[in-house]
Parts: sequence; C-alpha cells; structure tokens
Amino acid sequence: MGKGARRRPAVGAAIVTVGDELLAGITLDTNAHWLATRLTGLGFTVRSVGTVADEPAAIVEAVAAAARRAKVVLVTGGLGPTRDDRTFEALAKLTGSPLTTRADVAEALRRRFASRGVPMPAANLRQARLPRSADVIPNPWGTAPAIRMRTGGSLVFALPGVPGEMRSLFEDAIRPQLESRFRELAPRILERLRVVALAEAEIASRLAPVSVPRGVRVSYLPSGAEVDLRLSGAAVDRTSLGRYARAVIRRLVPHIYERGNRSLAEVVIEALRERGESLALAESCTGGLLGGRLTAVAGSSDVLWGGWVTYANDAKIQEVGVPARSLAAHGAVSVEVAVAMADGARRAASTSHGIGITGIAGPGGGTPTKPVGTVVIAWTRRGAPTLHRVFRFDGNRDAVREQAVSLALDGLRRAVLGLPELEA
Amino acid sequence: MGKGARRRPAVGAAIVTVGDELLAGITLDTNAHWLATRLTGLGFTVRSVGTVADEPAAIVEAVAAAARRAKVVLVTGGLGPTRDDRTFEALAKLTGSPLTTRADVAEALRRRFASRGVPMPAANLRQARLPRSADVIPNPWGTAPAIRMRTGGSLVFALPGVPGEMRSLFEDAIRPQLESRFRELAPRILERLRVVALAEAEIASRLAPVSVPRGVRVSYLPSGAEVDLRLSGAAVDRTSLGRYARAVIRRLVPHIYERGNRSLAEVVIEALRERGESLALAESCTGGLLGGRLTAVAGSSDVLWGGWVTYANDAKIQEVGVPARSLAAHGAVSVEVAVAMADGARRAASTSHGIGITGIAGPGGGTPTKPVGTVVIAWTRRGAPTLHRVFRFDGNRDAVREQAVSLALDGLRRAVLGLPELEA
Repeated sequence: MGKGARRRPAVGAAIVTVGDELLAGITLDTNAHWLATRLTGLGFTVRSVGTVADEPAAIVEAVAAAARRAKVVLVTGGLGPTRDDRTFEALAKLTGSPLTTRADVAEALRRRFASRGVPMPAANLRQARLPRSADVIPNPWGTAPAIRMRTGGSLVFALPGVPGEMRSLFEDAIRPQLESRFRELAPRILERLRVVALAEAEIASRLAPVSVPRGVRVSYLPSGAEVDLRLSGAAVDRTSLGRYARAVIRRLVPHIYERGNRSLAEVVIEALRERGESLALAESCTGGLLGGRLTAVAGSSDVLWGGWVTYANDAKIQEVGVPARSLAAHGAVSVEVAVAMADGARRAASTSHGIGITGIAGPGGGTPTKPVGTVVIAWTRRGAPTLHRVFRFDGNRDAVREQAVSLALDGLRRAVLGLPELEA
Repeated sequence: MGKGARRRPAVGAAIVTVGDELLAGITLDTNAHWLATRLTGLGFTVRSVGTVADEPAAIVEAVAAAARRAKVVLVTGGLGPTRDDRTFEALAKLTGSPLTTRADVAEALRRRFASRGVPMPAANLRQARLPRSADVIPNPWGTAPAIRMRTGGSLVFALPGVPGEMRSLFEDAIRPQLESRFRELAPRILERLRVVALAEAEIASRLAPVSVPRGVRVSYLPSGAEVDLRLSGAAVDRTSLGRYARAVIRRLVPHIYERGNRSLAEVVIEALRERGESLALAESCTGGLLGGRLTAVAGSSDVLWGGWVTYANDAKIQEVGVPARSLAAHGAVSVEVAVAMADGARRAASTSHGIGITGIAGPGGGTPTKPVGTVVIAWTRRGAPTLHRVFRFDGNRDAVREQAVSLALDGLRRAVLGLPELEA
C-alpha cells in the first residue's frame, strides 16, 4: 500500500497459538488464520503469528516478543483442565500476577456441570485459577474462561483453543472491545465475490484484461469447486473498489453466486424459499453430504423435504424407483440412473425439485470409461425438462464428493434463478 | 519430558514462514503444518513456528530467534521474483554475507524459460541473487532455488513458499541431508488412543491415578464428542510407553474405540462387515451427515444400505412410517419418533441395524423442556430390544450435529461389539 494513502497510523496486532499438537503437526492451526483474517478486517496490521509448546517459558517468551511488536496480542490454547494446559500459569509469570482461584468462575463451572446433571470433575477447578490482575471474559460455550491482561503498553487476550468457542468469544466479547478501544482504525474494505464451477486459472485469464485499481488487492481462495475472490483496499478506495468489483462480476457471471458472505447452500435455500419451492434429494456417492450441506443452514426445513441415501442398488430400486433394468443396462453410475433417482425423489416427496447424484468417488471402482471422479448429477423440476451432467472431478474421495455437492447446488441455483445451464 | 529417560539429546527445529498474505489471513499456512509433521516424524522437537511479513527486519529477527532455539531452521516463502520477495536479502543481512548474482543459477533460469519457448522476464534475475556464503539447492520444479546457510551453530534452509515445490524440495534434497547430519535422532514413537463420549476433564480425572512414565508425554486433542490421546516418547521408552498405553485403555474402555488411526466410522464399518451385518439410517437434524461420515470410508457400501433424510414431518410419516399421532403427541424430537425412525428404516431396508436421529440443532427451535442441543438417537437391531438415548449437546448448530453423529456411531459400535450401552 502506498504510504500516501495511509492517513491513519497502523496499529499492530500479534497472534500466539499454544499447543504441542500444533508444533508436532498433529493439528492444523486454523485459529491463527481465522484471527488474522478478523484482525485485518478490523484494520489492524498483523505483525506476527507464532506457535509455541505447552511450556510456560516458551509461552512467556512468545507473548513478551509479541507484545513488543503489537498493541494487541491474542493468545489461543492451553486453557483446558489438564496438566498440559499452562497458558494461565505463563501469563501469571509474564505479568508478575500470581494465580488465584476465582470463586465466581469456580461457581459458574459448578453450575454449568450441575445444569447437565453431571458432577464437576476436580480437574476443571484448574480453569478457575487465573492471574490475579486478569479480567475475566465469561465463556458461555465451554468451560475455559477467556481473560484480558495488560503487559507493558499492550492488551493481551487469552482464549480457548477450541475453534467454535474461540470464534464465538472473539465475535461476541473481544471484537466489540477492540472496536471501542481503537477507534482510530480504518477498517479495510473487503469485497467477497464467491465463484463456483470455474477454475482459478480460468478466472485469472478472464480477469486479465481488467486493470486492478491502485491500492486494491485481489486474492484467490480456492476450495473444492469454489473460489473466493477477495478484493481489499483502504477506506479511501471505496469507489474504485466498487467499480472494479462490478467489472469482475460482469466477466464471471453466472459463476458468481454471491457478493457477500452467504454460502452456496444459503443462496439456493433463499432462492427456493422466495419462490415457495421445495426440494428432495437422492444421493449415492455423496452419501448424505448434500443433505448435510443444506441442513447446515438454519431454516432449511422451509424448503428441504428430505431425501434418500440410496447407497446400495437395492435402495435405488426400492426407494426411489430406479428401474432394475437401467442399473443392469447402464450401471449405477449413468445418466439413466441419476435421472431416475432425481425424478423418483421428486415424485415420492411431491416437491418442486429433485436432485439425483451417483458417481465413483474412489479410490476403487473406476473403469476405463468411467474413471474415479466420474459423477452424474440430474436435476428434475415439476413441469420442466430434466437436466443432467456427467462430471469428471479431480482429487481424492473427499475432494470428489465435495465438488459433487457444490456442482449439484450450482445446477439447482441456475435452474431456480433461470440462469444458463451448467457446462459439463 | 523427564531428563533421565532421554538417552539421546532432543534436537530442536524451528519453522519460519514469510508472507504478508499469511498474516492478513488471505492464505492458510499449510506449509508450517506440513513441515512440523515431517520434522517431528524425523525425530526433531519442533520448538516454534512463526510467521512474519515480507520485511527484511522482521525476517532477520524471526530467523535469529529461531536459530537461538533450534539447530535446524526452515524458512519458507519470499523467494519469488517480485520486489516484495525479500527473504534472500534478509538472510544476507543476518549472516553478513552480501547478495551476489550466481552465474550458474542465472543460466539455469534462462535455460528453464528457453525450454518452454518463453523469454525470461527480467524480474526473475532477482532469484539468482543469493547471499555469497549460501549453498544452492537446485529446484527442478520452479524458478526459485532453495539455499542452505549457517548462522551461529544452526543450519538455515530457505525454501520457496509454493507448497508443491516446497514439499518436493524437502523430501528430495533436505530430508536426506538432515538424516545424514543428525544420525543421533531417534524417531519418536507415537501411540494414538481414540476416545468417544467422554469429556477431556473426565478422561484426565480417570487417568490421574496412573503415573506417566518418565519420558512419555500425553496430549489431549478434543474434537466434538471425540478426544484423541497422543502418547509420545523417544525410542528407548517403547516398553514403558506400551505399558502405560495398556493402563490407559483399561481405565477408558469402553470409550476407547481405536488404538491407531482408524476413524470411528471405519471401526463401525469393519465391525459390521466382519459380522455380515448391515445398516440403514433415518436422519432428521443431522440431515445426512451420518451417511456422509460413513460413506467417507471407501468400501462402506459393503454394510451401508442407505437411508433417509426425513427432515420434514411428512417425510418421517411417509418414508419411514413414523405414526402421525406420535408426532402430534410427543413432537418430532422425542423418543417415540426416534425409535419409529430407526425401526422404520431397518424394516424398510431389511437390514440388521437401524439408526434414527432427531433433534434441535439450533439456533432456533428450543423450548424449556427441549432446549437447543437436545438430540434423541435410537438404535434398533433385528431380534433385539431397541435402545434410545436423549442427549443435551453443547455448542452451536455445527457442533451439535457433529456430536450427534459421533454418538450415533458410538451407540452402534457398542451394540455390534456387545459393549455396555452408552450413558445418556
């Protein structure tokens, strides 16, 4: 970023994640990445991210170094009830503020267990032993409280390492504190354009002719059959950022399904809901993942009737009426069977839409004409012609299944919104 | 780790990843995780992982700190052809060894472009400017060479940040060097004990009376309703590690479902397969996730007939024969409905086992008597009494659903293996 454009001072933040399992590579550290995204979005400049072992000396050194670089330090992990959880002990040492048992925290822990009719294990009392000078941030989602402390001129927050708890605590408790304490921050403007069924390189070549305005940064975040484009820039660039976003959208429709944060499943569900339409599924190789992706959206019951996991051939015949002769003549992975599944699901459920998915996710089961990665998807709709596509997805079993779910949703999105059909 | 048991010295390693995109959270840092796994497997103790910006001062500070802690430092990123790639410059500064253009590296770059019929962009010449004292490690997969340097008593390797190139260079060039230079390394032995339906704190209190042998380290890795226990130690401790593992297993059965790497779904599928038994599912709040978890296992079609996603009440009535009066009298989230779902699925599919899941995943839909997190699971089995449990899970929608899937699998595992029933 050009220095001229930066009217407001940069405020540094740093992240320290704690845990032997992170250093041994047993666990992928997604907390650091999530926090970096959030802090950057708030306008902080993240100066460093570090991971250290569950050892007080290492934690003290890392937090002290982070506090020298940054006004705000976020520490995650090491707040659990077991002996290898030593973050509170380290922060006590760093700040010269001894550990003391907080009666209110201990009482909240006891109530938490009592409400579930379970006696509190003695080990959990460790989680009420906090540095004396720490402010407690109650954690309604788990047993480990978060805390806030000062060291030197920096604010240090310690959060549990369980990702769901960490994220909820950050959003509900820490983010508001940071926003009110650091009013001078210029939030970076982010545009999120979500793309499906178009490869990263193809997106790049379509966008090559569009010049990126000064101060705008474009990042590609691929995940399965979807790519997130992130456009970011300082507040001063709002106009040029908006203009560039519109140019990107023009070149990528109908592959862009969202300008914002909704998932593909959310977009599809809202489109169905607005039209009063409903959906039933028949899944084979995805085994329920499409249903799982849709029902991850609260309120999906408004449009999703339900479906069948017709994994065995018998299930396909018996439950959604796939003709046994189609299975014999064309095999379970065929256009005929996918269409019969989609149609059978829609008719049995009396819904507006039906989807059928059948494929070879691998690692076994491939043939020369139907290699691993072959997935057939059919979309049927009351009073409209049935659509189907044969895909050949790259990647392992999980990757093939994830891509199949995304493409199944995208085909439905296009059908519901009246967009051009998917290319195979 | 106790010093007495350690016959061989621990050799420290450290990882520094470089890149603004990592700090802004635009890119998830998978390199650090991959390298940590590899180094741990070789027997190194990874002491720290850090990420810094593309700024020479920050890189110098981070590499210097890493070299104080560790004999081997791996640096990734910042070797590209653009001006924001400054790792070589930083290493030149750190080691007092000025940047000079290497004729052989420049020539290799030119040949690389020529072989693809493309003129070399001038920018790529930057990649041939290396610290004078660096040893070059040629990179056949990309334009950035890797280098090896000494600083203090430590070996520093700098590798490109592109994951494929980094991994290939590590495996082909760096790993063999490390193995021959650090012959004293004892590859760590790891025991993985996988536990379900027992909270971390409860595990800790059950294990409190068992003394951990010197040199053995125990880590807890919770994820949903499952906890992985990792026991690790140097090679010399194989016997005491094994003895301790057996003591842990005695105290945690029947909650331990695996000593090794199989997932809960794999364990269940193998147990069913060995007995020639089969399974059908009726899922409501999990919406297909149980099917998704089971079908993630290649070969699950041997035992999984399939199932129903009976999300709407109509689907429950029509497809698995839940009596409308049960829904009216007890509500969709009730023992009666879960049992009818499991039983209906099993009968319709003519399988040995049936599972029914119904619950309130949230965020809406809770009531005082059935709060969000209430999930009822039923397991039916041909010729045996039907079992059911009412759970109250903590956490958000995703967490509730993940826990429900794990508990459904665990109840089935217990039924198939003849273990004591799940406690609610």
